[in-house]
Amino acid sequence: MTTPPSLPLGLDEPVTPASIIEFISSTWPTFANSMTCRAVGEGSAEVSRLVEPHEIRPGRVISGPAQFAIADAAMWFAVIGVVGFSAVPAVTSELSIRFLRPGLGDELHSTARLDSVGAKTFVGSINVWTTDKSRPIAVAQGTYVLPAT
Amino acid sequence: MTTPPSLPLGLDEPVTPASIIEFISSTWPTFANSMTCRAVGEGSAEVSRLVEPHEIRPGRVISGPAQFAIADAAMWFAVIGVVGFSAVPAVTSELSIRFLRPGLGDELHSTARLDSVGAKTFVGSINVWTTDKSRPIAVAQGTYVLPAT
Amino acid sequence: MTTPPSLPLGLDEPVTPASIIEFISSTWPTFANSMTCRAVGEGSAEVSRLVEPHEIRPGRVISGPAQFAIADAAMWFAVIGVVGFSAVPAVTSELSIRFLRPGLGDELHSTARLDSVGAKTFVGSINVWTTDKSRPIAVAQGTYVLPAT
Amino acid sequence: MTTPPSLPLGLDEPVTPASIIEFISSTWPTFANSMTCRAVGEGSAEVSRLVEPHEIRPGRVISGPAQFAIADAAMWFAVIGVVGFSAVPAVTSELSIRFLRPGLGDELHSTARLDSVGAKTFVGSINVWTTDKSRPIAVAQGTYVLPAT
Repeated sequence: MTTPPSLPLGLDEPVTPASIIEFISSTWPTFANSMTCRAVGEGSAEVSRLVEPHEIRPGRVISGPAQFAIADAAMWFAVIGVVGFSAVPAVTSELSIRFLRPGLGDELHSTARLDSVGAKTFVGSINVWTTDKSRPIAVAQGTYVLPAT
Repeated sequence: MTTPPSLPLGLDEPVTPASIIEFISSTWPTFANSMTCRAVGEGSAEVSRLVEPHEIRPGRVISGPAQFAIADAAMWFAVIGVVGFSAVPAVTSELSIRFLRPGLGDELHSTARLDSVGAKTFVGSINVWTTDKSRPIAVAQGTYVLPAT
Repeated sequence: MTTPPSLPLGLDEPVTPASIIEFISSTWPTFANSMTCRAVGEGSAEVSRLVEPHEIRPGRVISGPAQFAIADAAMWFAVIGVVGFSAVPAVTSELSIRFLRPGLGDELHSTARLDSVGAKTFVGSINVWTTDKSRPIAVAQGTYVLPAT
Repeated sequence: MTTPPSLPLGLDEPVTPASIIEFISSTWPTFANSMTCRAVGEGSAEVSRLVEPHEIRPGRVISGPAQFAIADAAMWFAVIGVVGFSAVPAVTSELSIRFLRPGLGDELHSTARLDSVGAKTFVGSINVWTTDKSRPIAVAQGTYVLPAT
């Protein structure tokens, strides 16, 4: 008995931690395959990823761009969570990040929570941490926009 | 019987909603007298103020700088709350603000919560609202620093 | 012989340093009367204003919100300069500001220069200074949006 | 005839486009080997890098984190340019970025210019572009700090 090949997910599919990775993987596998989505929905999302060796600075500290990348992804997932897969083409319009303390290790986690949900514009606040969720290594705020249709 | 003149508050006085206004008023009354501190301590602060007529844009919308001003004050109070009155000379090093929806009326409220507390540097996240605390009209993040001694 | 009363400026009037103040004054005099526009057009604007006594912190340092206010105004004027007076209802969607050094005195100046001009969205970079244009006391970047029509 | 092995660069070596890459490569080759420094000194720096395939979104648009990464690098190089190689341990304390238009292709360029140079703190403004330096795809501002010694 064989597993039937999975059909591509449709735009109206429910957004779940598994389906969001599957959906994005279908067009951008190098991005989605490095991400684990732990929760999505109700205006927030939580994602994890392994840090690549080239993202570790001397001193074994996780680089700032690696932290930006996961913050940006968490925000993207939170937007998709409230809008559905039609929001996959949404893009960051601006994001500001503050680095609070050095982050060690090889795993990054991030939670984004939307502060406002408009027809086209989404503002959210984001935490990034390594081992202790209550001690973020970075905080960020930013804006996603849906492209004009 | 007369009320004795109040002595100036000392640097080691406990920071309370009343004492923080009294302390700042002693050197900057035009600022502090327009502010009401509703809560301060444990890494956060809540402040309210009346909007001045010149801070209302045509359309009766509260101007952006008025929202920035209360966000900046809430963050200042949160820093003083964790450090004590010796942090009154602290200054904003950077602050970014996002305006989420128009704010009407003549009263502004803001809550700041510190994301990190260092020896000299404090990062916090801030909400600004008018009538509904759960629907902020602006969100912000910023950094305060204590001047070098 | 008497001067005829000036007619209200129309939306298609040329934007000049004098006309921009006159136009905004017609609906928001408390704002515009405190501002001097020194240059506007070609994607940039320069404005000056006197600092009010309540905007001076102890130590005679100009407060952060006063600097934010003039940065926000310079950006607004730059947008009006490229679009015309139909852009007067434009609003700040986000602005981040960095305070570089203490600013003394009672006069503030600011130059904004647009980095991108879209149909509805405008991003710009802003300097704020007191006496030496080449030594800004603050730098900022931000986004203005035209309201949906 | 053989080339003698190059000695490691010292902290007091002059900072040039070649020496900055060589110096950083000695401890973080996976970072520096992907970067080309085109200019450094006098408070600014220009860097280029090839975009990796995993940094290209569907639609062939360069991802936001790839743009953040080069902006952050340009700023780092500008700081090293004014301080010398003793500033290599400097870290970003905060950075805000605005994405202006989609960027296509596989090469990114960035220029950072310092707005203020302090004993420990550096603020700068940054442009990112692909093919036309006068049409940035992103602008940013941020702060670097030297670690306490």
